[in-house]
Amino acid sequence: MTAHFDTALSKGTLESGDALTPRFNEDGLIACVAVEADTGEILMLAWMNAEALQMTIESGTAHYWSRSRQCLWKKGETSGQIQTVRRMRIDCDQDAIVIDVTVGGDGGACHTGKRSCFYRDIELGGADATRARLVTNAR
Amino acid sequence: MTAHFDTALSKGTLESGDALTPRFNEDGLIACVAVEADTGEILMLAWMNAEALQMTIESGTAHYWSRSRQCLWKKGETSGQIQTVRRMRIDCDQDAIVIDVTVGGDGGACHTGKRSCFYRDIELGGADATRARLVTNAR
Repeated sequence: MTAHFDTALSKGTLESGDALTPRFNEDGLIACVAVEADTGEILMLAWMNAEALQMTIESGTAHYWSRSRQCLWKKGETSGQIQTVRRMRIDCDQDAIVIDVTVGGDGGACHTGKRSCFYRDIELGGADATRARLVTNAR
Repeated sequence: MTAHFDTALSKGTLESGDALTPRFNEDGLIACVAVEADTGEILMLAWMNAEALQMTIESGTAHYWSRSRQCLWKKGETSGQIQTVRRMRIDCDQDAIVIDVTVGGDGGACHTGKRSCFYRDIELGGADATRARLVTNAR
C-alpha cells in the first residue's frame, strides 16, 4: 500500500496554497524534525515516506521510514518512546516537516539513550574547520 | 575547492567520539536546521555540502548549498538576513546539523517574506490524511 498525495500545480499553490502537496525526494522521502512540544527541544531528524506521513496525520502518532532497516517505523514501538503529535508544520516549498511531540516512555528520542539526538556541539572557531571537535552537551 | 572531512572508522567513534565526521548523502549534502537562538523558533531546513559546512564553522556565518541554483549560498548575502551562528550541534549518526542563529536584516529566513519557512500547519484529524489542509499560522 502506498499513500498518494497530490502534487502542487504551480509554485504559487505550493507556497501559498492550503493543500498538502508534499515534495518527496528521489527516494520518496521527506525530512521531518521532531521537537519536544513543551520545551521546544529539538529531539531528532528523521524521514517519512508517503505512508509514514499518512499514518502520522491519521493516527496522531509519529511514523517514519527507517532508511537503515528499509521499513515503516512507528517510533517507540519497542522502546516505548511513542511520539504523540501535538502540531505539524510544513515549510514553504513543502519538502520539510516539523512536528511538535510529547514523548512516551522515558521521554527520550535517541537510540543511544540520550534524550535528544543532538547531544554534541561542534566547536566553533578552531584553526581548521574540517578538524573541528565535538563536545558532549548537558542533554 | 572541496573541503575534506574525515570519516568515522566505527559506529562507536561516529556516535560517541569527539571528532567531526559528517556523513554527507549521495549528493554530498547534509541537512541543517536553523533555529532562532533567542526564541528557539525553527526558521528553516536547508542543506550544506562540505564546503558550506567548512565555511560555516570557520566564519561563524551560515552557508548552505542551494540545490535549486546548484551553488554555494551565503544566507542573507542579498537579503541581509545573515545568520550568525551561536551554536552548532550534530546528531548521533552525524548526518544532521542544528544551528542556533541570530538573524540580520529584518530577522526573517524565508524567501516568501515570512519569518520562518514553517508558516503553515497541517490540519490533523481529518477524514483523509492525503487530503489534509494547510492553515497559515500566526508567524
